[in-house]
Amino acid sequence: MPPRPDEFVDGDRLREDIEHNGTFGATDGDGHGRTNTTGSEANRDAREYLVSRFEAAGLAVTVDAVGNLVGYWDPPGASGAPVAAGSHLDSVPDGGRFDGPLGVYAALEAVRAMQDADCTPERPVEVVSFTEEEGTTFASGLLGSSVASGARSVDDALALTDGEGRTLDETLDAIGFRGEGRLDASEWDAWLELHVEQHTDLERAGAQAGVVTDITGITHCEATVTGEADHAGATPMGEERTDALAAASEFVLTMEEAAEARTAEDPAAVATVGSLDVSPNATNVVPGRVEMGLDVRSVEYDSMDHLCVHAREELDRLEAERRVETTFERGFDLEPTPMAERCREALAGAGEAADVETLTLHSGAAHDSMYVASVTDAGMLFAPSRDGVSHSPREWTDWGDCAAATRVLTGALADLAGVE
Amino acid sequence: MPPRPDEFVDGDRLREDIEHNGTFGATDGDGHGRTNTTGSEANRDAREYLVSRFEAAGLAVTVDAVGNLVGYWDPPGASGAPVAAGSHLDSVPDGGRFDGPLGVYAALEAVRAMQDADCTPERPVEVVSFTEEEGTTFASGLLGSSVASGARSVDDALALTDGEGRTLDETLDAIGFRGEGRLDASEWDAWLELHVEQHTDLERAGAQAGVVTDITGITHCEATVTGEADHAGATPMGEERTDALAAASEFVLTMEEAAEARTAEDPAAVATVGSLDVSPNATNVVPGRVEMGLDVRSVEYDSMDHLCVHAREELDRLEAERRVETTFERGFDLEPTPMAERCREALAGAGEAADVETLTLHSGAAHDSMYVASVTDAGMLFAPSRDGVSHSPREWTDWGDCAAATRVLTGALADLAGVE
Repeated sequence: MPPRPDEFVDGDRLREDIEHNGTFGATDGDGHGRTNTTGSEANRDAREYLVSRFEAAGLAVTVDAVGNLVGYWDPPGASGAPVAAGSHLDSVPDGGRFDGPLGVYAALEAVRAMQDADCTPERPVEVVSFTEEEGTTFASGLLGSSVASGARSVDDALALTDGEGRTLDETLDAIGFRGEGRLDASEWDAWLELHVEQHTDLERAGAQAGVVTDITGITHCEATVTGEADHAGATPMGEERTDALAAASEFVLTMEEAAEARTAEDPAAVATVGSLDVSPNATNVVPGRVEMGLDVRSVEYDSMDHLCVHAREELDRLEAERRVETTFERGFDLEPTPMAERCREALAGAGEAADVETLTLHSGAAHDSMYVASVTDAGMLFAPSRDGVSHSPREWTDWGDCAAATRVLTGALADLAGVE
Repeated sequence: MPPRPDEFVDGDRLREDIEHNGTFGATDGDGHGRTNTTGSEANRDAREYLVSRFEAAGLAVTVDAVGNLVGYWDPPGASGAPVAAGSHLDSVPDGGRFDGPLGVYAALEAVRAMQDADCTPERPVEVVSFTEEEGTTFASGLLGSSVASGARSVDDALALTDGEGRTLDETLDAIGFRGEGRLDASEWDAWLELHVEQHTDLERAGAQAGVVTDITGITHCEATVTGEADHAGATPMGEERTDALAAASEFVLTMEEAAEARTAEDPAAVATVGSLDVSPNATNVVPGRVEMGLDVRSVEYDSMDHLCVHAREELDRLEAERRVETTFERGFDLEPTPMAERCREALAGAGEAADVETLTLHSGAAHDSMYVASVTDAGMLFAPSRDGVSHSPREWTDWGDCAAATRVLTGALADLAGVE
């Protein structure tokens, strides 16, 4: 029996890449925090370093029109639709070093491990870094993967502007990563993404990897409550007040209660009023208007519908009982995304082969794999996040866990690529 | 019997003064809105116009170190401590034309009416315009009266700075109203202030004037709730969340409920969470921290204490039940201020004599008379506010109501000044 490619995963090589990538846009001395937003100097440097690492591994580098970066490994004798793996290099402001880069460099490490093991996969392998997963600058997130899956056109994407009116087109051109054509994820036979969990299930279970069953659906709703801004001293309690903040407070609590109740049948259901803005927001004025942002998620679309309907009904109740006016808009809406059975099996099997315990869980966060899954078979693997922290310099995944999860990714990718 | 001085109140003369004053800093075409903040061009013009009106009425003009403006009427034979009346000329940004100026020009009209009636009061009469009642620029309000009552020293007041670091001293000097000495309200025998009600009690009762029993006490408290900012998708409902906004929402509602309950024994009790700021305030992040501004008022200090104790207890409860951390600070605190019996009687008697129905009510808003009442006998009279609106270009008091209330003020002032 030939050696398994996962045995050739080099944890030090992987760590060096992730650490080096963490220096681009580093926000603190130890490099745990980084700011890597689309078109920044740090973003250019991170992209150039990835290109150099692709080239060092003998991969053919392509950049598509929206800056999606691909390293293409075409082993002798390989043919047919490629398998692909990767994630993203960008970060939120002062984010962590693992969220994104772990998936990109683990995919590259998987290719290097297959090369070192003298594997001859039946299919070519692509290592992918999608543009702006975090949505900090040009879109609300998942930008590169939305184009690669056909959900957004190249032209629409290139015309997106940042806060200063600069287009994505100009921005990518300025850093030398405005390529040509469109990376087409539908041409892949399968896709895998390794990502940090951003929660504590793996840590608490003591597992080094988690196979994702479904990625949560996400709805963002905007609710407004309008009462009357009155003098806080001259307006007595009771009928004469229509306090928009008191009404909004009922809304916050009823959404929390409804989501908690829903978990009895659907543990993945969550509802969060994450943003709330008061006008005029002065201590001595009865609040006249409140705007709220509601985040609703579940792996069951029925639960999301249920919670949104509840939200609308509660606002109607507040209109009747508190004489406020309300609006409700269900905007951004992504259905839950199940991962492909064969990708899940490949990951679980690879975990077993590599003697890495894998947990089965869902993803409560959005990932590029949501879009990829709409056009081909997709799978996701999680690595543990210390204390569940992400989008913070405190984000951390132990190097041993990074290597272990990369071994699982490598085994699964080799399996899907048809390594003997 | 000699004619009563209130019969000489000239509603047109009063109206012309108030309308002319409304042109300084006018924010809209019809002059209903105005911005008159300390040291502005509008503020200088309004002060200069008042000086010219004082001089036209033969009053001796003085300006103290903090810009308090006085017109002194020293009728032949008058002696002893003067009686005083007035209010303020400054406004909030885009405020109304009556809030403040009505009280200043009504006091001047009262003097002119006494002059026209050939009254010979036993005491001198002072017409007063206090500096910056509204607290828009240098302090949180009642600036000139706090100095005139000795609650704040002249030096402390002059050293106050605006948002750009400019002192009150420099600012008043630049518009020519940095005078000398200190207006000393404790030297007055009595004080009266006519002001718009800023609420709807008079309007609903169809009364043209209201005699104030007490000015509300006011406490401003700052409460913070700290939970943990977590990923709105990756953090399940229940134990793992410490949502600062959900906890704060309970606080908003319990304060509303407690104040409503208190009105059973104290109708003047109010509690308002007027400001609320969420961090990080993003739809997809569980709120980690909330800062709130709580306004508590009553004419009974016990009620204010009761509500502040309730606030602290509720935060303790939230710490225990929701595992948040909280802070509570009772900052700005003014005790309720009863108006002097003899001033109230003078106002009520003058209403009867002038055949103007007067209502008895409390003031839920703060006024310069709060400070004046700490050093001499003080009384307040309200004129109706249409729809209770103030601090807005929509603020309105009918000219007939202005004249009626001024007749009451005139009668009371003449009474206190010892007019035969």
